[in-house]
Amino acid sequence: MTGSVQEIALVNGLILADPRSCKVVPHGKTIIKGNRIAEVNSSYLGDEISGEVLDCTDCIILPGLVNAHTHAAMSLLRGLADDLPLNTWLNDYIFPSEGQYVAPDFVYLGTSLSAVEMALAGITTFADGYFFMERAAEAAAAVGLRAIVAQGILDVPVPDNQRPEAWPDRVRAFFSGFPSNDLVTPALFCHSPYLCSPETLVRAKRMAEDHNCLLFSHIAETRSEVEQIGFRYNRTPLDHVHALGILDPNFVAVHCVHLSEKEVELAAESKTGVVHCPESNMKLASGACPAWDLVRHGAKMAIGTDGPASNNNLDLFEEMRSASFLSKLLTGNPEALDAATALRMATIGGAEALGLDDRIGSLEPGKFADIIVIDLNRPHLMPVFDPVSHLVYSAKGSDVRDVLVNGKFVVRNGTIMTVDTSELYARVRDLSNKIAAALDAPGRR
Amino acid sequence: MTGSVQEIALVNGLILADPRSCKVVPHGKTIIKGNRIAEVNSSYLGDEISGEVLDCTDCIILPGLVNAHTHAAMSLLRGLADDLPLNTWLNDYIFPSEGQYVAPDFVYLGTSLSAVEMALAGITTFADGYFFMERAAEAAAAVGLRAIVAQGILDVPVPDNQRPEAWPDRVRAFFSGFPSNDLVTPALFCHSPYLCSPETLVRAKRMAEDHNCLLFSHIAETRSEVEQIGFRYNRTPLDHVHALGILDPNFVAVHCVHLSEKEVELAAESKTGVVHCPESNMKLASGACPAWDLVRHGAKMAIGTDGPASNNNLDLFEEMRSASFLSKLLTGNPEALDAATALRMATIGGAEALGLDDRIGSLEPGKFADIIVIDLNRPHLMPVFDPVSHLVYSAKGSDVRDVLVNGKFVVRNGTIMTVDTSELYARVRDLSNKIAAALDAPGRR
Ligand SMILES: [Zn+2]
Ligand SMILES: [Zn+2]
Repeated sequence: MTGSVQEIALVNGLILADPRSCKVVPHGKTIIKGNRIAEVNSSYLGDEISGEVLDCTDCIILPGLVNAHTHAAMSLLRGLADDLPLNTWLNDYIFPSEGQYVAPDFVYLGTSLSAVEMALAGITTFADGYFFMERAAEAAAAVGLRAIVAQGILDVPVPDNQRPEAWPDRVRAFFSGFPSNDLVTPALFCHSPYLCSPETLVRAKRMAEDHNCLLFSHIAETRSEVEQIGFRYNRTPLDHVHALGILDPNFVAVHCVHLSEKEVELAAESKTGVVHCPESNMKLASGACPAWDLVRHGAKMAIGTDGPASNNNLDLFEEMRSASFLSKLLTGNPEALDAATALRMATIGGAEALGLDDRIGSLEPGKFADIIVIDLNRPHLMPVFDPVSHLVYSAKGSDVRDVLVNGKFVVRNGTIMTVDTSELYARVRDLSNKIAAALDAPGRR
Repeated sequence: MTGSVQEIALVNGLILADPRSCKVVPHGKTIIKGNRIAEVNSSYLGDEISGEVLDCTDCIILPGLVNAHTHAAMSLLRGLADDLPLNTWLNDYIFPSEGQYVAPDFVYLGTSLSAVEMALAGITTFADGYFFMERAAEAAAAVGLRAIVAQGILDVPVPDNQRPEAWPDRVRAFFSGFPSNDLVTPALFCHSPYLCSPETLVRAKRMAEDHNCLLFSHIAETRSEVEQIGFRYNRTPLDHVHALGILDPNFVAVHCVHLSEKEVELAAESKTGVVHCPESNMKLASGACPAWDLVRHGAKMAIGTDGPASNNNLDLFEEMRSASFLSKLLTGNPEALDAATALRMATIGGAEALGLDDRIGSLEPGKFADIIVIDLNRPHLMPVFDPVSHLVYSAKGSDVRDVLVNGKFVVRNGTIMTVDTSELYARVRDLSNKIAAALDAPGRR
């Protein structure tokens, strides 16, 4: 008897419960009770099951993916400008559009759109950094995704803070206005060491500590950043934040494209989270993160899509593939960043980098029931010699059939269960028509 | 009145008729009569249309994609072995499995599986190179795709020719057994200058000329090939085939990863087709083709997925994206290989490289009706500021709603119309179970 606790059993299919071993068990049984996993890989012989039964024949069952870095609301600027140098892109397109349009409702709408995209593509947890982030937290919770929602901090005027020196007030308002919901956790996000002074970084770190939360920052994304930080502080970017006393397991360094050998060791030893965003780095021609080197040094490596205005989608299957391909190309070694490593980075690795590995990232009794089901009944996923190879080298977000977060169906049979997508899409079209009219797009080409 | 000729009208939606200009026209009308395009971009005001009407509201209508290089039958070996050096992969896994399993029925089955995958992902024409290729041609025609089907030639024993010196007999049998079908065209495929002697290359070229067909070869894929060819012939690979008198508009050089500046010019001047396979090159750690340099020199550039055992899917949307990302990374220039260039390479560029640009590659009256319809009603394709950016940077094969080849629906509403996929998939499972049992897989990890 289950009493009032909702019970769901996933039966049949290939179970990949723990990406650390990547062992695949056929025909097991996974039991969810309430929002947690009760049993995994127990033998299933067609015995009676109480509660709901989800048949997963011809499917892979695995932990939900963790997108360790994005700017979800920027989906509303997707494709607004591409194939441009970073500075032109930011200064002539993104910053002006943000200045004009980014408001609480924009953030709610854009984050909702991205959360729906991510849910459909098997992402159950994402780490977000942008503005008006109370609203991003509400959007994530409404779609039903787990999220770490980090308020942006910059030493320049931004949409939710016109007076740079007043950012601590904005952060306090963010914390006090943060919605009370089990799925979302607040955090802080300093844009970068070139747009945040040492004083800002240190003070943000202290505020993060006071609230027992993570601090994120873009680190060493471009060569120009390395030059600037070298010129200003006579250090390389990761070493610079280390010198400020910021590097620890509650710090998450995003990008880490240009690291010295010493910084690779520093990243590993400090147990700081490192988020690899291969597609964004390639698209903006920033360079290639030494991800395989970081992995071998034992760094806490995660994968992120970065924002949908610089990628331009939020498909972590693609991103795993690109991470593997990029490391193979960079090292000239086809064994580098193998499929199992990529899958770990996108699941338990992401959980570790975000300090959530005691709760998510693998299917174990007691962990939250964040589970995805991949439908193998697709021509590009046949035949099945190696499920791990398929997940990394062949699959795409659209192969996700079901998504459970916190024991609840967010996606079922490829359909979002939590929000009315036609209403959402209509609102996105309304807003984008306004932006497009102002830009005299589409048809600019 | 249409008489007995089937007439189809595509109405509404955004029409991208010619990837050379990438101009997008909203709300036009495209009329298909029989197997050809009759009208494009004629104004549509809801006027009466004879024949069938396909509403494309919230869609992009564009020419079908051209996958200019694959080994389709190798889908049956997908994921059999990954993350291995090329030599281990070939010698310990692929060649033994091929020796044991590759037979006419294997080629028919594997090509059918790949053709279904490609059709669902918007590929309307593919260029294939493998063994028992009469059967590949039959499979392509049965699924309803246009294909250039090239018989493999190597100076070593291969599944359809045990006596290397007897390959011309095999080629003659291939030509005489080639099915009579408008969709498929025969061609020859010399594996590479390191597995085909100068005599073999020259004789294959002559046989191709006699049959007025294309000759393909892998060229300059790896550094080790460049070294071997240098050691044997004191030339670089493309220069070597040039010295043999083979480079012309009826030759297609696949990969071209390691080219000298002189060879880049040679590729352009000779008007030889060049096929860029970015994902295969990255996965096998072969290197990065100077694709942007080749484009700027005016080479006839196409994109290929390469075979599904080294990629591991046949999604040309992903491949366009990877081509763009890889060139940006290689050049350090985010403007390199922009979205419009990638789209051209995957459509009219592929048609040019394959000598089919008078018939396919753009939507123009008189050309064959090879047309795909992309559904924009997906969260990752919203909002729409720039349809070309979406096609290259955001879309995936699963966004293809409808596919017409030669005026016939091959895919409609995401479903294959031409073959019984459940029967096909069952046969694939049967065969792969035999291979897996022999390998003691799955679960090898
Ligand atoms: Zn970012
Ligand atoms: Zn090939």
